[in-house]
Amino acid sequence: MKSIEWLTNSIRFVDQTELPLNEVFIETSNISILADAIRTLKVRGAPLLGIASAYGILLGIQNEIHAPKEKFLSAFENAINVISSTRPTAKNLFWALERMRNIIRLNSNDDPNTLFDKLKYEALSIHEEDRIMCENIGKYGSELIPNVAKIITHCNTGALATGGIGTAFGVILTAYNSGKDISVYADETRPLLQGARLTMWEFQKEGIPSTLITDNAAAWTIKTKKINLIIVGADRIAMNGDAANKIGTYNLAILAKEHNIPFYIAAPSSTIDSSIYSGEQIQIEERDSSEVVNGFGKQIAPSNISVFNPAFDVTPHHLISAIITERGVLRAPFLDSLARTVKQ
Amino acid sequence: MKSIEWLTNSIRFVDQTELPLNEVFIETSNISILADAIRTLKVRGAPLLGIASAYGILLGIQNEIHAPKEKFLSAFENAINVISSTRPTAKNLFWALERMRNIIRLNSNDDPNTLFDKLKYEALSIHEEDRIMCENIGKYGSELIPNVAKIITHCNTGALATGGIGTAFGVILTAYNSGKDISVYADETRPLLQGARLTMWEFQKEGIPSTLITDNAAAWTIKTKKINLIIVGADRIAMNGDAANKIGTYNLAILAKEHNIPFYIAAPSSTIDSSIYSGEQIQIEERDSSEVVNGFGKQIAPSNISVFNPAFDVTPHHLISAIITERGVLRAPFLDSLARTVKQ
Repeated sequence: MKSIEWLTNSIRFVDQTELPLNEVFIETSNISILADAIRTLKVRGAPLLGIASAYGILLGIQNEIHAPKEKFLSAFENAINVISSTRPTAKNLFWALERMRNIIRLNSNDDPNTLFDKLKYEALSIHEEDRIMCENIGKYGSELIPNVAKIITHCNTGALATGGIGTAFGVILTAYNSGKDISVYADETRPLLQGARLTMWEFQKEGIPSTLITDNAAAWTIKTKKINLIIVGADRIAMNGDAANKIGTYNLAILAKEHNIPFYIAAPSSTIDSSIYSGEQIQIEERDSSEVVNGFGKQIAPSNISVFNPAFDVTPHHLISAIITERGVLRAPFLDSLARTVKQ
Repeated sequence: MKSIEWLTNSIRFVDQTELPLNEVFIETSNISILADAIRTLKVRGAPLLGIASAYGILLGIQNEIHAPKEKFLSAFENAINVISSTRPTAKNLFWALERMRNIIRLNSNDDPNTLFDKLKYEALSIHEEDRIMCENIGKYGSELIPNVAKIITHCNTGALATGGIGTAFGVILTAYNSGKDISVYADETRPLLQGARLTMWEFQKEGIPSTLITDNAAAWTIKTKKINLIIVGADRIAMNGDAANKIGTYNLAILAKEHNIPFYIAAPSSTIDSSIYSGEQIQIEERDSSEVVNGFGKQIAPSNISVFNPAFDVTPHHLISAIITERGVLRAPFLDSLARTVKQ
């Protein structure tokens, strides 16, 4: 499943707001339509946002490649502005725009036509690097999956969030495609239900045997369905191995320990933040109470109540069996293995 | 808050299907309206159903107390049938009807007027016994609550489920009313959201400081909010102390152990099932997938997926710090303490 694709002069992507009920692809050569799709979360997921942003620049300048250079560069700046304004706090978006701007900087003597080709190559590289990164995570991770495995996963870590097969999802998919007998239980992942809405859709799409559970059924599922391992993604990893990820991850890590099964994190090495030593330095975003109370078009709790809605939690490193990156499988002591990986 | 009440010739109860958005009381002297309310879950919760059923019999016969005895007894049988047909699998409903029928059996020489008075006394006793039972659970349990306590609870165990202040909820309320500095975090309790819909409403009603969390935020809440204890109800307790309760309870018990805080069960001694030795003998009901997929009034997962939706889980006795009953606080070894309690 390709959640985003560059065609000859246009971009094609899944409208994620229509999932899981309708599979709608949007194809456009218009930067404004793409910008609007980013703004309204039709395209979402950190790596995917970076890729879409780079492609967006191409859409914004492709009609000016035969124009005078000044006009071409002004179209480029305009495209940067249009994309930047969509989601001003998305780190990956700005990271990708910076890579595109760097091409302009490094090739100041080129004509528009040549510059466009180099920008296109850069955008395709951003996408391709993410695809290969996912593939390598999948390859290293699948070695940890037994030939017959029942797995619990959390949130969405698949093609809908990345430019490839995903992280934790990619590990499961790679193991499944290598012929292993896999079945997966997906947490629905309250409050935003990415597990129910997106991950279950991706499992269905790939034909992987999968079952949806509520988050609070995880312990009973581990015990009665004889789950072999838990694997999830990560948003940020401290140098001691503490990992921030979607709320509920810390829950699962404790359940894995109690039932003596491995708990794996799968994430690109770029997730490792060498500026922080431990998870205590990670600030956890608290999101609006409406996500919990009004998330589904229906108010499910009294008005005027207090709600604690942390977006993430931090799993302490001692509960993590291994961290799977595109550079290999890292184990405790994480301070050593993470430091070696960051330096590579 | 009285969720059910007998007035002179009528019954008054909260319409639980209107909660938490609207506080609607239904007052009726018509057995058909009550029967319909039971059928449509406007009145629900095992002990409350028993009380409502007994009052329902009174509604069905109160116009026949001056009629010939034959006509009175035929109205009684008719009332039994009307109530029995509402929820044919509800144990407490039949238990209450059997107590009412026993009054007729034991007083076969009485005239309708006297019989009605004895039936009314029995119905009021069923209610009063439940009220006192809750009060005693509250009294014993509140002794376990520190003077300053942050508490997590799960599902609904309050006045809406019982004829009194509730079980786990009653413990919290009693501690709060005794002047302790209490704040509570309520799990929303997927899939049916009893915590969000009912428990948060009851906390708000009683003025107890309370905060709603998603079920998967429990571990992070325990850690970051410094929770002191977890207290929940139970549906069935085996003689070794294993306890079946709403799905997610087993999760919480594991989290309590990991964080070294007590995990308490509060339940009437009638919950102890002396016919079973361990939780392995408890059959867990699996409910329809639509509760998970369509529960918020909007489909939240793809069509045609597999869903595992157990209604309950079983918490092994070694994770339970104490079982609070109306006869006292029971501790390990539970086989001894439960046996003594059942024999009382």
